Amino acid sequence: MTEQNSPKAEAFLADWAVHSRFGAVEGTGGVERQAASAADGEQRKWFTRLLESHGFTVQRDAVGNQFGLLELVPGAPYVLTGSHMDSQPTAGRFDGAYGVMASAHACFRVADELRASGEQPRFNLAVVNWFNEEGSRFKPSMMGSSVFTGKLPLMDALATPDPHGVTVKDALDAIGERGGFEGLDVASYAEIHVQQGRSMEQDGITIGLVNATWGARKFEFRITGEQAHSGSTLMADRRDALLGAARLIVAARELVDEFEPGALHTACGEINVYPNSPVVVASEVQLLFDLRSSSSDVLTAAYARVMETVERVQREDRVQIEVVAEHSWDQNPYPEAGLELAREVAQQLGLTHDRVMTVAGHDSTNMKDEVPTVMLFVPSVDGISHNLKEFTREEDLLAGVDHLTGVVRRLAGGALVAD
Amino acid sequence: MTEQNSPKAEAFLADWAVHSRFGAVEGTGGVERQAASAADGEQRKWFTRLLESHGFTVQRDAVGNQFGLLELVPGAPYVLTGSHMDSQPTAGRFDGAYGVMASAHACFRVADELRASGEQPRFNLAVVNWFNEEGSRFKPSMMGSSVFTGKLPLMDALATPDPHGVTVKDALDAIGERGGFEGLDVASYAEIHVQQGRSMEQDGITIGLVNATWGARKFEFRITGEQAHSGSTLMADRRDALLGAARLIVAARELVDEFEPGALHTACGEINVYPNSPVVVASEVQLLFDLRSSSSDVLTAAYARVMETVERVQREDRVQIEVVAEHSWDQNPYPEAGLELAREVAQQLGLTHDRVMTVAGHDSTNMKDEVPTVMLFVPSVDGISHNLKEFTREEDLLAGVDHLTGVVRRLAGGALVAD
Repeated sequence: MTEQNSPKAEAFLADWAVHSRFGAVEGTGGVERQAASAADGEQRKWFTRLLESHGFTVQRDAVGNQFGLLELVPGAPYVLTGSHMDSQPTAGRFDGAYGVMASAHACFRVADELRASGEQPRFNLAVVNWFNEEGSRFKPSMMGSSVFTGKLPLMDALATPDPHGVTVKDALDAIGERGGFEGLDVASYAEIHVQQGRSMEQDGITIGLVNATWGARKFEFRITGEQAHSGSTLMADRRDALLGAARLIVAARELVDEFEPGALHTACGEINVYPNSPVVVASEVQLLFDLRSSSSDVLTAAYARVMETVERVQREDRVQIEVVAEHSWDQNPYPEAGLELAREVAQQLGLTHDRVMTVAGHDSTNMKDEVPTVMLFVPSVDGISHNLKEFTREEDLLAGVDHLTGVVRRLAGGALVAD
Repeated sequence: MTEQNSPKAEAFLADWAVHSRFGAVEGTGGVERQAASAADGEQRKWFTRLLESHGFTVQRDAVGNQFGLLELVPGAPYVLTGSHMDSQPTAGRFDGAYGVMASAHACFRVADELRASGEQPRFNLAVVNWFNEEGSRFKPSMMGSSVFTGKLPLMDALATPDPHGVTVKDALDAIGERGGFEGLDVASYAEIHVQQGRSMEQDGITIGLVNATWGARKFEFRITGEQAHSGSTLMADRRDALLGAARLIVAARELVDEFEPGALHTACGEINVYPNSPVVVASEVQLLFDLRSSSSDVLTAAYARVMETVERVQREDRVQIEVVAEHSWDQNPYPEAGLELAREVAQQLGLTHDRVMTVAGHDSTNMKDEVPTVMLFVPSVDGISHNLKEFTREEDLLAGVDHLTGVVRRLAGGALVAD
C-alpha cells in the first residue's frame, strides 16, 4: 500500500518539488547541475537546512560528500542511505536526486516512528549526498564514494581538473563544500535510484531488487597523428588522428552486431580534438570508449576485437593509439541477504517486485564491497536517462520512498548485521 | 641572382628573426599566434614601429586589417602587397607571416630605389597584414580580405564569436586593433606565400607562378541525435550523433579512393560534441567537412556521393543531418597578365620558375576578383604546413623577397593597369 494522499507523501512531494528547482532548465522538466557547480552548491545549502530542520547534524568530508547525521544511540554505528544530487549536462531531475530525497524522507519517517514509539534502534541514521557520481565534469564517475571506500586516493581526486583546468579542490572550495569530517562508522547501506532502462516498466514492476551490476571495460584512448594543412597536404601523406578516432567509434557500434542482441553495449560519448581547426588535420584526439556486458566472456571477446581494430587502424591510417587510462569492473553481484530483505519489505507493502540487473554503475557498487547493502530501483518511463525528458511517475516515486523506509527501519533495527 | 650576403638580405633576415619570436612555441621553430590573440597584438605593435621607421604611415580598418602606406605620388592609387600574420594553433612561422615581411621589405627596397633614382612612380606603395586569414579562432577564413572586398558584411564579421563567445569586435578592441581607416584606392595587388605542398621542392622550382586555386566545397554539418545514458540505453534505442559524425568522417576518407589518385582531397578537421560526457550518448555534433579538387566534375561527383552517405546515415543511424553553413568556390584562375609579369621578373633574376596551382585559399583569392593580381610561391621543405615543423630554406626566402621586389617595382610603374 502506498500512502499517496498521506501527509508523509505530501511532505515528500513538496520537498521534491523544491529540490528539482536547483539547476532547472527553463521550459523542460530537467536540470543542469554538474558536480560543484553553483547550482550544486545552492542545492547543498538548501539540503543542509532541510536536514537540520529535522534534527540532523550536517557534515562534509574532504571530497565534498555531504552527510546528514541523526544520533539516536550514542556511539553506535550508522545505517547510511543516499545517492547523488549532481547531474549530467541537460539531464533528468530524477537520476540520483530522487535517491537522496527518498533517503532523507525515509530517515525522517523512521526517526518519527522511533520517537513516537520510544523504541531504541540498534544503529543511528545517516543520509548521504555523494560527490560527483556522474563524472561528466570530473573523471572518474562515483568519485565521492570511491574516496570514501578507499578505492581512489583523496589527493588524486582533489587534483582532478575539469575541462577548464579547475580542480576538484578549487571547485569544492568555490561552493564552500570541502569539509573535515571523517570516520563515519557505517553498519549498512541502502540506495534507491530510477531504473535507467525500460524493463521494469515493460514488466509492470514497481520495486526492482538489484542483484548485479553489468561488467564494464572503459578506456581512454589517445590517438596521435600529425598536424598538417587539411586542404593541400596529399592524402597519402596524412596521419589524421580524428580519422583514427572515427574508425574506432564506428567499430564500437559494429562490434555490437557480432554478439547476441542485448549482450553487449558499446559507447563513445566524449572526444577531444587538437587543434580542432577547420583547416588542420588533427594531431591528437582523446576518446572515451566503453564496453559493457552482463557476461565476462562477452567482455573478453569484445575487448580482443577492439584491440584488433586498434592494430588495424594504427597500421592502415598511420596513427598511434595508446590506452592512457582504463577503468574496469567485473559483473558484480549484490549480496543475497539484502535482496531477501528488500523482497520481504515489498511483499509486506504489497508492491510488485522482481530482480533486475543494473547496467549503469551506482555509488552502491562501491559500498556493497564494504558493508551489507541494499540497492533498489523504481521504474522510468521509456527508460529515458541522461536526458531532460527523463520521467518517473509520482506513484512510483512514493512507492519507492515507502519501500526504502521499510528497508531503513529494518536496517536500523540491526538487519543484515551480525550481533 | 639572389643577394644572400647583401645588406638588404641581412636586413630582411634580421627583421624576420624578430618577427618569428611573437607567439613562438618554446623549443620548436613554430608559433601560436591566432587572430587577435595577445601575441598577434604585440606583433602588430612591433610591425607598426617597423613600418613607421621606414617612413610609412600605419592605419587599421574596421575589421583590423593593418595597412602601411607610403605616399609617393599625392592622390594616386596604391600598389598593395601583403599576406597575414595570424597563425593556426601550434603552426609554422612561415605561413602568411613570410608574405607580410617579404612585402614590407619589397616596398622598403622599391622606395629606396625610387628615392635614390629620383624617378617618379605611377602608384603609391602599401603593405597589408590581413586580419584572420586562418579562420581557426573565428570562422570563416580570409575574413579581413573578404570584408575589404565586400564579400563579407562588416557587421557579420564583427559579430563572429570564437569558441569562448568572444566576438571579433571585442577581441580586436582588446588588442587595440580596430580602426576607422577606409577607402584605400588599390591599383594592383601582389602576394607571396610558402607553398603548402611539395611539388616545387620536388621539381626544383624556386618561384611558383600561381595560376589557379583548386575548387572547394566546405560544409558545416549539424548531426542531431538524442541524449541517453551511454551504458544502459538499449543499442537499438540510441540515436547517437557522434556515431553519425564518425560515419561521415570515415566516408570522407573512403571517398578519395573512388577517384584518380590526387584528384580529390577531403578533410574533417573540427568537431564539436554536446554534451561530450563519457556516459552520455551525444545529442548534437557540429562537423566541418571539406572537399577540394582542381576539377569541378570531381567536386560535383564527390558532393553527390557525400549526400548519398548523408541519406544512408540518417536512415540507418536514425540521426538528422543538416547543412547549417556552406562555403564554396570554383576552380578559379589567376589572371594571365600577372603570371606573365611574374615570369619575366623570374627570368630577369635567373630564378627557376613554373606555374603551380594552390590547393589552399589565400587573401589574393579575394583580391584577384577586384584588381590585377600576382600570386607567388616559394618552396616548403616536404610541404609540411599547419605544423610547428614547417620550414623554408633561407635562400628561398631571400629569392622570394628579390622576386617580389621586382614585381612591386613594375606594379608601381604601372604594370598590369591600363593608362
